[in-house]
Amino acid sequence: MSELTEKAGKLDAVDELAAKRAEFVLDGPEGAVYLDGNSLGALPVGVPGRVADVVGRQWGEMRIRSWTEEGWWTAPERIGDRIAPLVGAAAGQIVVGDSTSVNVFKALVGAVRLARETGAGRDEILVDATTFPTDGYIAGSAARMTGCTLRPVTPSEVPDALGERTAAVLLNHVDYRTGRLHDLPSLTAAVHAAGAYAVWDLCHSAGALPVGLDAHGVDLAVGCTYKYLNGGPGSPAYLYVRADLQDRFDSPLPGWNSHAEPFGMRSEYEPAEGAVRGRVGTPDILSMLALEAALEVWDGVTVEAVRAKSLALTDFFLECVGEYVPEGRVECLTPVPHAERGSQVALRCAGAGPVMRRLIERGVVGDFRHPDVLRFGFTPLYVGFADVERAARALAEELSEATAQQSHRV
Amino acid sequence: MSELTEKAGKLDAVDELAAKRAEFVLDGPEGAVYLDGNSLGALPVGVPGRVADVVGRQWGEMRIRSWTEEGWWTAPERIGDRIAPLVGAAAGQIVVGDSTSVNVFKALVGAVRLARETGAGRDEILVDATTFPTDGYIAGSAARMTGCTLRPVTPSEVPDALGERTAAVLLNHVDYRTGRLHDLPSLTAAVHAAGAYAVWDLCHSAGALPVGLDAHGVDLAVGCTYKYLNGGPGSPAYLYVRADLQDRFDSPLPGWNSHAEPFGMRSEYEPAEGAVRGRVGTPDILSMLALEAALEVWDGVTVEAVRAKSLALTDFFLECVGEYVPEGRVECLTPVPHAERGSQVALRCAGAGPVMRRLIERGVVGDFRHPDVLRFGFTPLYVGFADVERAARALAEELSEATAQQSHRV
Repeated sequence: MSELTEKAGKLDAVDELAAKRAEFVLDGPEGAVYLDGNSLGALPVGVPGRVADVVGRQWGEMRIRSWTEEGWWTAPERIGDRIAPLVGAAAGQIVVGDSTSVNVFKALVGAVRLARETGAGRDEILVDATTFPTDGYIAGSAARMTGCTLRPVTPSEVPDALGERTAAVLLNHVDYRTGRLHDLPSLTAAVHAAGAYAVWDLCHSAGALPVGLDAHGVDLAVGCTYKYLNGGPGSPAYLYVRADLQDRFDSPLPGWNSHAEPFGMRSEYEPAEGAVRGRVGTPDILSMLALEAALEVWDGVTVEAVRAKSLALTDFFLECVGEYVPEGRVECLTPVPHAERGSQVALRCAGAGPVMRRLIERGVVGDFRHPDVLRFGFTPLYVGFADVERAARALAEELSEATAQQSHRV
Repeated sequence: MSELTEKAGKLDAVDELAAKRAEFVLDGPEGAVYLDGNSLGALPVGVPGRVADVVGRQWGEMRIRSWTEEGWWTAPERIGDRIAPLVGAAAGQIVVGDSTSVNVFKALVGAVRLARETGAGRDEILVDATTFPTDGYIAGSAARMTGCTLRPVTPSEVPDALGERTAAVLLNHVDYRTGRLHDLPSLTAAVHAAGAYAVWDLCHSAGALPVGLDAHGVDLAVGCTYKYLNGGPGSPAYLYVRADLQDRFDSPLPGWNSHAEPFGMRSEYEPAEGAVRGRVGTPDILSMLALEAALEVWDGVTVEAVRAKSLALTDFFLECVGEYVPEGRVECLTPVPHAERGSQVALRCAGAGPVMRRLIERGVVGDFRHPDVLRFGFTPLYVGFADVERAARALAEELSEATAQQSHRV
């Protein structure tokens, strides 16, 4: 037994979240080391039974009665309130529904309209130049449809780029590629100091680390629920609108679900009060209630405990990689300081695509991001330290063999 | 046995779609007469097993591999192609995803942009003044964000309202309240003659009657899948963009799923070719694959056979109501001519709300639309003629008792 194997055992023995692993399905053909929860979270064991009930009894037997008697109609705001404490929000500010892209559109157009109430000359949107592409594409559309200019800047450049023309700024809390954690409190404060509105994308942070939306005065935020929140493939995203902005939130997608009296069937639009104003069309009940069941794994868990374990996992992975992987074979893109690290480790690596394919064949599942990045996501609720050691060892073996083969060919 | 009971038996005996009823779950506490499939279609028997497989095996065991190996990624266009023949569309023109409201926004903004390519002065959107409210609300937003004026007109007034300023027209194929079927071929032709673009909402017609999108040259269309297509509560909607317009379709929601190379992670947006251009964010897999399973009930069924039975059902319902219900107690809002009738019957009735509540208690499920409308939807795949007779008789008894009670009080 190597020193690191021994260390992994000790770390697992004192892991206060270790029991949570039993609440997830982690067997199956892919093997036990699943480091792709930053793409698709594992299945919580309570979900299949809940979904079977929603389909068989609620839809199959009760049908339309379930809209009221099973709480279908109010699911978007009820589930929003369940997500709220995970991102540091009081109740009544989050609704679930639609995709992240659609919510980015609502949030960003809403932010520009808020900015223009007091500053008609604000005609520029700043967007994280390193963003997951969809945010940039949607920001382009939001800019075009509100008569703004879109200006991509890296998050560190935001403070200098802000000015009297800035209406809104769209930023990622954690970079999807590198795993870099951006400084939400100070960037939000800088945006506010310039009189602009901050929209944060929490896809890669919610459920992995504290966000503190209320504490830091974030204006609007969006996020998906299928990564660290384990809601299932393509499960609905969410929209946060800070309580004191809700009365002025002017959605570009004012569907009937956001109406003050949706069943009044009135031809004039009158927006509902509160977070409900962020709803659009009929909520997607199957996916939404699967998500609600998935969120039960958070009972009794604090985000602080999750963050502590997340950092311990990524620290240990970096230690194992440093120990096992041949010098110079990978370059770490993820920042080493804790304050700048999310819950994933991204390694730049020659031949990353084939390397990841072979790792997956060996039962270590991460993913590959074009052109040369290996991503390993660490979900503290179900990843253990022995998993981490095994993954680093498999990576090292894979790279050593590849190196040996290359040498052999020469 | 009354004459109408006997007639119902004869009609059921020669119903070529009668065997389809066994493909739906129709027991449960609400009783056997379900006339609310125009709100939420009944559960097809194949859905629970498929959903259990998607959750338990595809998500739970295969996880991210299912995006490619189980066809998750291509589900929106694959399921679109399964819906296509039901609305008279060749393959490659429909994608499934998002809500109806979101698709109305894509279609209507897209239509205005198409109109402006050749006519910069086109700055008016016509919208069906009798529409289900969400279409009007979203049309208002589309108008505001494209610098257009929104003008509500009843469908019959559309030909006179069209002009050189008209960019796009948003119409419902079947009116959600009255069940009136609008003349899609002639209205589309009138819109085209004025140089404008026609967007049709098929929520209350798809799966109930022939639509003929391709044959009549419709430009864009949207629809939900949870009514006559039985996709489940809040199942994803769809967008049709006619093949020869796709290259010029300019979506206001250009999410990464609509990119020519979605996994290239490029910061510049380049739209995909074909129907895929109508996609936005990550597809909602649980709901989407439940819908795919639900669509299997259409195997071996023609829309023409469905339409023939639908008209026979509504004819028979009107006959039974005429025979059983006390004179003057209800007023039929649904047109009698077949060419103007969808697949529901709407009856105006004093005290419609309490009347429908009591009908539901008796096991006859329709719905109530504010302020005074009883709606009865007839889904030819699972509603039989004995159901129709029973529903009309229950309604008559309910209204006779109410009348008797009122007389008694006097």
